Amino acid sequence: MNTSEGKLLVGIDIGGTKTAVLLSSTPPEVIARKEFATRPAQGPERALELIKSGIHEMLAEQGADSTAIARLGVSCGGPLDRVQGIIQSPPNLPTWDDVPIKALLEREFQAECLIENDANAGAVAEHRFGAGKGCQNMVFLTMGTGLGAGVITDGRLYRGTNDLAGEVGHLRLTRTGPIGHNKKGSAEGWASGGGMAQVAQHAVAAALKKKRPTRLAKLYRSGGPITAKDIGVAARQGDKVARAVLETTGEKLGEVLAILVDLLNPDRIVIGGLAMRLGDLLLEPARRIMRREALELPARTCQIIPAELGESIGDAAALCIAMGI
Amino acid sequence: MNTSEGKLLVGIDIGGTKTAVLLSSTPPEVIARKEFATRPAQGPERALELIKSGIHEMLAEQGADSTAIARLGVSCGGPLDRVQGIIQSPPNLPTWDDVPIKALLEREFQAECLIENDANAGAVAEHRFGAGKGCQNMVFLTMGTGLGAGVITDGRLYRGTNDLAGEVGHLRLTRTGPIGHNKKGSAEGWASGGGMAQVAQHAVAAALKKKRPTRLAKLYRSGGPITAKDIGVAARQGDKVARAVLETTGEKLGEVLAILVDLLNPDRIVIGGLAMRLGDLLLEPARRIMRREALELPARTCQIIPAELGESIGDAAALCIAMGI
Repeated sequence: MNTSEGKLLVGIDIGGTKTAVLLSSTPPEVIARKEFATRPAQGPERALELIKSGIHEMLAEQGADSTAIARLGVSCGGPLDRVQGIIQSPPNLPTWDDVPIKALLEREFQAECLIENDANAGAVAEHRFGAGKGCQNMVFLTMGTGLGAGVITDGRLYRGTNDLAGEVGHLRLTRTGPIGHNKKGSAEGWASGGGMAQVAQHAVAAALKKKRPTRLAKLYRSGGPITAKDIGVAARQGDKVARAVLETTGEKLGEVLAILVDLLNPDRIVIGGLAMRLGDLLLEPARRIMRREALELPARTCQIIPAELGESIGDAAALCIAMGI
Repeated sequence: MNTSEGKLLVGIDIGGTKTAVLLSSTPPEVIARKEFATRPAQGPERALELIKSGIHEMLAEQGADSTAIARLGVSCGGPLDRVQGIIQSPPNLPTWDDVPIKALLEREFQAECLIENDANAGAVAEHRFGAGKGCQNMVFLTMGTGLGAGVITDGRLYRGTNDLAGEVGHLRLTRTGPIGHNKKGSAEGWASGGGMAQVAQHAVAAALKKKRPTRLAKLYRSGGPITAKDIGVAARQGDKVARAVLETTGEKLGEVLAILVDLLNPDRIVIGGLAMRLGDLLLEPARRIMRREALELPARTCQIIPAELGESIGDAAALCIAMGI
């Protein structure tokens, strides 16, 4: 490991639940890593202090100090001002309103700090180190609670004019339907963890009314949310209601894929989050509808595959930002 | 004018109705130009001979020969094989099946020949010389009989993996509805000249059934197609049925614009063809729906404007291809 002056990259991945700080000299390998709960309800100050102290501690453990830092990269949810380096007010970080993280960290560590939204940085990470390796045109779909995308065109990240390209969750699929991105019938309403939970609520209610059994009944009656994980478990056990929910989500995901295929004609669409966990339960109906809806040659060309970086995507994304994307 | 060795660009614009050949040393200015009817029903041979003889004649009129040619550029409808330089079988050029135009013209003129589809080349032309000047991220919509698009990302043409990016006419807007691109309810079915004719047929039939007068009744009764031009003329004369047709087309165009705005976050969407002729009759409802459907900041950022090059876009597009795009 080389900790001489200006050789280390610092990655900072700020999520709604957890924040990680890490050091690397040869991404995506990680030399040192610390993780803590973000606790956004407590305001950004505590987390910012933990980010700073965590980086200092990791450096000290390597026998280095901040002069060893080449660049810092911060990955977090948008909206953000990438040029000014300000986290504006991500939905997953309530209280983080206009946090000038670039200036704060540059002052602390006397090194350049870049910031980028997590969908864009995740797209670059999957393209450079994961399921997108070697392809020229790629869309990375983040399918978690919400639905977002990062777009690679001709091998480079395409950000759009306001850094807001790839807002695929906001596309309308139907006039009415589950809500996502504040819009009924949107792609996020249909094809995300949050959307799947809404579809499941309706499906379980309808099944109970018809006195059809389902493993999801207990969860429904307890009034708790039905998560994508619950649905996946029940579907693998053969639960028909859970399977129908996954089929609906997969088909709507397929409509989204068809739009991306017809508009962007990519080599690959790489899907993170739920697609990694649910696999073909989700991707089989998605591919079927994509092939029905999209133009034949682009549909045949485009591979639809789960992301590869798994839990490490946040680390790799933050390091890609520190590399300058 | 400089006709010394290798200084002239040759543009060749092959359309379903007309073909133009032209010379330029400083695009988009044109030194010489010849035009003839393509007559695709007669096969490609006649048109190819006229292209070759037209170029030789123009060169001779300038006191030059083929050694003066720097490069030739061919613009025509897809599908085509850009790398091999083969026109495959454009819907507007029946009988032009697998015409190796690059090889034919390179042999004839001993100069490099490039080919590109007209929507892509039109996007570059509007970006370089027309309504897209100075912007980084642009979509050029060709709204004629059909609906196509060329996409500029970060100042450069984005072609996609099979040269098929921007197939916006194939996107589905509704389950049923007018047909375009062989698909019911597609964007081309709703928001193109061909789609507008279908919507008008239905609207006039419904009006006549309810004994409501419309200036389009005579056309309808004669069994002829109701063209976008007819609808525009009647709408400007205050015809309510024609206005309603334009409103529907404009609103559906707005849905397409919203998809482009949410996915690509462009500075500008430049619309050729019908938008130039119909102006705000079409663009006012389109902008209204786009603002309702798309995310607020990207919608506010994106200008929706008619193309500027008008009738000369084919010439400028062919010259952009000869320039190497």
